[in-house]
Amino acid sequence: MMRPTSSLPAQAKLALIGKYSRSLASTPNAGMPDIAHPIHEIASYLQAAGHQVWLDEKTAEQTHLPHLPHADLVTLGQTVDAAIVLGGDGTLLGIARQFAPYDIPLIGINQGRLGFMTDIPLQGWQPDLQAILAGQAIEERRALLEAEVWRANESCFKALALNDVVVSRGGTGGMIEVSVLVDGEPMTTLRADGLILATPTGSTAYALSAGGPILHPRLAGITLVPVAPHSLTNRPITLPNDVAVEMIIRSGRNMSVHFDMQSLTELQDGDRITIKRAQHSIRLLHPPGYDYFGMLRAKLHWSINPLLEGKAS
Amino acid sequence: MMRPTSSLPAQAKLALIGKYSRSLASTPNAGMPDIAHPIHEIASYLQAAGHQVWLDEKTAEQTHLPHLPHADLVTLGQTVDAAIVLGGDGTLLGIARQFAPYDIPLIGINQGRLGFMTDIPLQGWQPDLQAILAGQAIEERRALLEAEVWRANESCFKALALNDVVVSRGGTGGMIEVSVLVDGEPMTTLRADGLILATPTGSTAYALSAGGPILHPRLAGITLVPVAPHSLTNRPITLPNDVAVEMIIRSGRNMSVHFDMQSLTELQDGDRITIKRAQHSIRLLHPPGYDYFGMLRAKLHWSINPLLEGKAS
Amino acid sequence: MMRPTSSLPAQAKLALIGKYSRSLASTPNAGMPDIAHPIHEIASYLQAAGHQVWLDEKTAEQTHLPHLPHADLVTLGQTVDAAIVLGGDGTLLGIARQFAPYDIPLIGINQGRLGFMTDIPLQGWQPDLQAILAGQAIEERRALLEAEVWRANESCFKALALNDVVVSRGGTGGMIEVSVLVDGEPMTTLRADGLILATPTGSTAYALSAGGPILHPRLAGITLVPVAPHSLTNRPITLPNDVAVEMIIRSGRNMSVHFDMQSLTELQDGDRITIKRAQHSIRLLHPPGYDYFGMLRAKLHWSINPLLEGKAS
Amino acid sequence: MMRPTSSLPAQAKLALIGKYSRSLASTPNAGMPDIAHPIHEIASYLQAAGHQVWLDEKTAEQTHLPHLPHADLVTLGQTVDAAIVLGGDGTLLGIARQFAPYDIPLIGINQGRLGFMTDIPLQGWQPDLQAILAGQAIEERRALLEAEVWRANESCFKALALNDVVVSRGGTGGMIEVSVLVDGEPMTTLRADGLILATPTGSTAYALSAGGPILHPRLAGITLVPVAPHSLTNRPITLPNDVAVEMIIRSGRNMSVHFDMQSLTELQDGDRITIKRAQHSIRLLHPPGYDYFGMLRAKLHWSINPLLEGKAS
Repeated sequence: MMRPTSSLPAQAKLALIGKYSRSLASTPNAGMPDIAHPIHEIASYLQAAGHQVWLDEKTAEQTHLPHLPHADLVTLGQTVDAAIVLGGDGTLLGIARQFAPYDIPLIGINQGRLGFMTDIPLQGWQPDLQAILAGQAIEERRALLEAEVWRANESCFKALALNDVVVSRGGTGGMIEVSVLVDGEPMTTLRADGLILATPTGSTAYALSAGGPILHPRLAGITLVPVAPHSLTNRPITLPNDVAVEMIIRSGRNMSVHFDMQSLTELQDGDRITIKRAQHSIRLLHPPGYDYFGMLRAKLHWSINPLLEGKAS
Repeated sequence: MMRPTSSLPAQAKLALIGKYSRSLASTPNAGMPDIAHPIHEIASYLQAAGHQVWLDEKTAEQTHLPHLPHADLVTLGQTVDAAIVLGGDGTLLGIARQFAPYDIPLIGINQGRLGFMTDIPLQGWQPDLQAILAGQAIEERRALLEAEVWRANESCFKALALNDVVVSRGGTGGMIEVSVLVDGEPMTTLRADGLILATPTGSTAYALSAGGPILHPRLAGITLVPVAPHSLTNRPITLPNDVAVEMIIRSGRNMSVHFDMQSLTELQDGDRITIKRAQHSIRLLHPPGYDYFGMLRAKLHWSINPLLEGKAS
Repeated sequence: MMRPTSSLPAQAKLALIGKYSRSLASTPNAGMPDIAHPIHEIASYLQAAGHQVWLDEKTAEQTHLPHLPHADLVTLGQTVDAAIVLGGDGTLLGIARQFAPYDIPLIGINQGRLGFMTDIPLQGWQPDLQAILAGQAIEERRALLEAEVWRANESCFKALALNDVVVSRGGTGGMIEVSVLVDGEPMTTLRADGLILATPTGSTAYALSAGGPILHPRLAGITLVPVAPHSLTNRPITLPNDVAVEMIIRSGRNMSVHFDMQSLTELQDGDRITIKRAQHSIRLLHPPGYDYFGMLRAKLHWSINPLLEGKAS
Repeated sequence: MMRPTSSLPAQAKLALIGKYSRSLASTPNAGMPDIAHPIHEIASYLQAAGHQVWLDEKTAEQTHLPHLPHADLVTLGQTVDAAIVLGGDGTLLGIARQFAPYDIPLIGINQGRLGFMTDIPLQGWQPDLQAILAGQAIEERRALLEAEVWRANESCFKALALNDVVVSRGGTGGMIEVSVLVDGEPMTTLRADGLILATPTGSTAYALSAGGPILHPRLAGITLVPVAPHSLTNRPITLPNDVAVEMIIRSGRNMSVHFDMQSLTELQDGDRITIKRAQHSIRLLHPPGYDYFGMLRAKLHWSINPLLEGKAS
C-alpha cells in the first residue's frame, strides 16, 4: 500500500533533533538517556556521507557539539531537506506539528521501544538511515487536525493536532454534555467523561483505549469516540476528513480541551470548538520493509491469540 | 454534506418496482401487504405528471396492471432514467445490485418503518416524490463491493455486495480460522465465529451488532469486524476502500460466505475470497431534508440518553 | 425472586425525608420543585392512617410544617420503623448510607422520572404506599461497600458506598496506574483513566457507562471495571463480595477517589484504598409488582430492539 | 482466597485417565501425542508411593498397560478417591461432567500449554502431584449447570454443562429470537446470533469472546451474554446462580443448543430450555501456589500492557 518516495538530494541539508522535555509535568531530563553520544555519532556519519547537518537549539544546548551549526525550528523548517528526530512518538508528534507548514519529511529514530512513527531502532540505525537517504524510503502522509476554541464568538485558542482533540471532564466533576455538529448539521448531544476526535494516527492512541476503531493511516477519515458515554446506544462513528466538526459545550465542571494530550485550555459552558483537517499534512519516511499491520501486531498485540484453553481439548 | 442532484428529465422514463420475495427461506408473499394498490396509485400519479412508467416483470405479475408496460430488470436498467422501489431496505439492496452497471438513480418508498435507504413513507409519498422528480433530491453515492471465491486457484463464485461480505462458521461447528491479506500484505490471522467486511452502508447492519464502528456514507472506507473473536486484542479496523482484501480460509466446518446476507456459497479449507470496491456504485435519491444523523438517531436510537438515574439525584 | 416483607407495625413510626441539595457544586434548591406540598399531603395521609410521622431537620426547615416533630438523622435512625424518602436515587443513596447502621427499611417516592430505587411515582403515590404499609412490600437487601484510604500506613479517610468506589485521574493529567490486590494476592496493575469497583446497585450507574456488566441485586458480587484502559486485553471481572480489595496508587496526577460520586478525597502516589463489604446492608421496600428486569428495560432501554432495517427486507 | 484441602488417604485409590478424542469432527488420535509413555510413568510413580491405580477403559485400550486394572467411568466414579486426568481442559470438562455425581476430586495434567483447570505441566509433573497427594492441594469447587430441552411440554434432552449452555443460529440462517425468563419473570426477548449462559468456569471461554465479563470461580453467579445482539442496548447481565432460567425459542432456522460446545440438539420454534445450577459440583485439586489471577494473566494476557507509544513521549 505504500509507495517509495522520491530521493532526497545526494548532498542533503538535514536537521538532527533530539528528544527534549515536552511534558508540562515531567521533571526536565529526569531519567532521560544521554543523547549527546548518539547525536554525535549520527552527525558524523551523515557528514561523512556528504550531507550538511544542523541541530535545533535545544539539542545543541544539551549535546554540546560546537562544531555543528544550529538554528531555531522555524529556520530549520525553512532550510532543510529532511529532519531526523531522535526520541519517541511523542517527540516526533511535537516536531511534526511545528514543521507542518514546511512539508519536510521526518525520519524517526527511537531510543527505546519502537513507536508507530519512530520506527528505526537506535541500536542499529545505520542500515535503515542509509537506505532512506539513498531513496529507498517508504513515504507516508498523515493528516493533521486544525482546531479553534471560541468563547462568545471570539476565537481564543488555536492548535494543530496529529493524534486527537479531546474534551474532558474535570477530575472531580460529573459528566460533560457536548453537542456535535457536522458541516453545521446537528449530529448528537452526548453526556460522557470525554469526547475524542481522532485522526488515523491518533486512532491507536487514546481513542483505542476508549473503544474506538483502528483507522488505517491512508484512510481519509476521522473518528468520534466518546469516553464512558452515558447512553448505552453510543457507538464510535467515522467521518470523512473533509468535514467541519463543531463541538458545543453544554455543561460540565472543570472541563478542558487537549490537543495531542499537550496544549490544553480550560473550557466553560457555551464554548465552541471547531475542527477541520489542516491544510498541511505530515510526511514520514519509513525504512524499507515498513509494515503497518506488523506494527499493530508488535505494539498492540493486535489480534494475537493466546489460546483460550477452555474451548480447546 | 449532501449535494442536490441534477434534475431528471421533465418527462422521465421511470421504473416502478415492488417488493418481492428475496429470501431463500421465507414463504413467498406470506404476510406481505398488498402492493397492487399503491403501485397503481403511484403509477397514475407519475403518468399524470407526464412521465413514462414501466414495471418489472415480477411486479407486473403481482399487481395485474395490464395497462402498464413491463420488462425484465436488464432491459429496465438499459432504458429508464430512474427507478422507484416500493419495499424495505432489503428489496432496495437487491435491486441496487442488479442495476449497478446502469448508473440509475434509485428512490425508495417504504411500506413499513422507514429504512436507511428507503426513506419516503408510503403514507404520504406524494410531496417527497414530487420534490425529487422536480430536481430537489439529495443525491448520494454508495460504494459496492465485488467479491470472488477461489478454490484451487479457480474462480468459483462472484457476487456484488452493498452491505457486507460475511464469512461464518456453521451452526454446529467451532470457530473458523481465517487469514486476511491487504494488498497482498499479511494483516492478521484470526479465529472467530465469523468475519465481516462492511461498506459504510453495511456498517449499520450486521457489522454494528458485532461491535463495529458506524461509517459515514461519504467515507471512502470499509471496515473489517470479527464476530466473537477468540483474541481479546481484536479491534475493528477501517481501511481505505481502494485496497484489495483477501481472506484465506484456514480451517472450520460447514463454513459459508454470504453477500448481503443472501447469495451464499459453502466454503472449504483453503478457499480464498478476494474483495475489492466494485467499479460501479449506487445512486440514491433522498427527499429534500434528508438527514443521515437524524436517521441514525431515529432508527438505532443512536446516542440517545435514557437518563441513568443512579447517577443523578 | 423477591420475597414479601414482614409487615410494619400497624401504628408505625415513620420518618419522612425530602430531597435536599447533596451536591457540593449545585446551587442549593436551584430549580428544585417545591416539596412542602407533597410532604404535607403524605404526612397527613400517614397520620390519618394512625402512624407517627417525623421529619428530618432539613426537610422541616424547608417545608415549614410546624405541627410535625423533627429530629436529626441519627435520632431518626434510632427511632423510626421505616423511612419514606421523597427525591431521586441520589437522595435515597445519601440517606441509605446514613441509616445503614440502623437496619431501617427505606421507601422511595420520586418526583420526576422513576429511579432504580425510588420507584413510587409522586403522581399517584397513595396506592403503592398503602400497600407497602399494609405489609405487601417486596423487600430487597442491597450490599454496601466500606472503604478506607491509607497514606503512609495511616488511615486518613473512611466512607460507605452503595454504588461504587471510583479512582479517577485529574482532568488535565494523563492516566493513573493502579495495582489491585484481592485478599492480598496481586491481581493486576493497570493504566487507565479510572478504576471502578461497583456493587450490583452501582452496576447500572457509572460502571455501565464504562462498559461493565449488569449485576443482579441479589448477586453476592462486586465488579471491577476500568475506564478507558490502556491495555486491549482488559475485561471487567466480577468477584465474590466477601473479598478484601486493595488498590495501590502507583502514579498519576491530580487523582481522586469518589464514593457514590460524592464524598471524595485527593490521592497521592503510594496511597492505598482498602474496600470490603460493609457489615450493614440497605433494606428497600418496593411496591407490590416490583420488577427489576422491567426497570432495566424502562430505564436503560436495555435490550430493546429498534429494528436494524439494513438486515430486514 | 483458596483453602487447602483435606488430605487424601495415604494409600489412595486413584483413577488415571488419558486424553481421548471427544470431538465429533476431529479425526481420532490425529496428531495426538502418545500418552502411553507418560501414563505408564505416572502409574509407576503412584504405585511406588503406595497408591492403587485404575485406568478407564479407553485409556487402557490406547496405552496397552495390561498390568493395570481398568474399569468404566461409572465404576471408577463409585470407587476411587481421586482422578488424575492427562489432557487439556476439554478432556477434564468431559470427565468432570461424568464424575459429577460422585464428588471425586480431579487433578489435571496438561501435555501442552497449561489450561485453566489442567494446571500441572506434563514436563515436571512430579513435585506438583506429590504435593497434592500429600495434602497440600488447593481445593476449589466449580458449579455445574443442569439443562433440559422441552418440546411441546415433553422433556426431550438433558445435559450437564460446566462451561456454558449456548443457543446458536444455523450457519446459513439469520438471527434467532429468544425470550428469557428468570424465576418465571420475563427478562428480555432478544435477537442475536446466539445466546450464552455461562458459569464462572465458562466465563473465560466462549462467553469472553462474545464480550462477557470474567466471573471469579468463587462467585455464586452465572452470566447471560448475547452474541452479536441486534439491539445496541444489550449488555451482559450476571445473575445469582440459584435462579431458574428459561429460554423460549421464538424463531430462527437451523438452530441448535450446545452444552460445553459438545453434546448438542437441534431446536425448533417453540422449544424451551430450562437451566438451573446442578445439585452436584466439581472438585478441582490445584497444586500449592495456584493463582487464579496469574492464570488469567498468563493465558489471556489479561490486563497486560503493551505500551501504546502514541501516548508516551
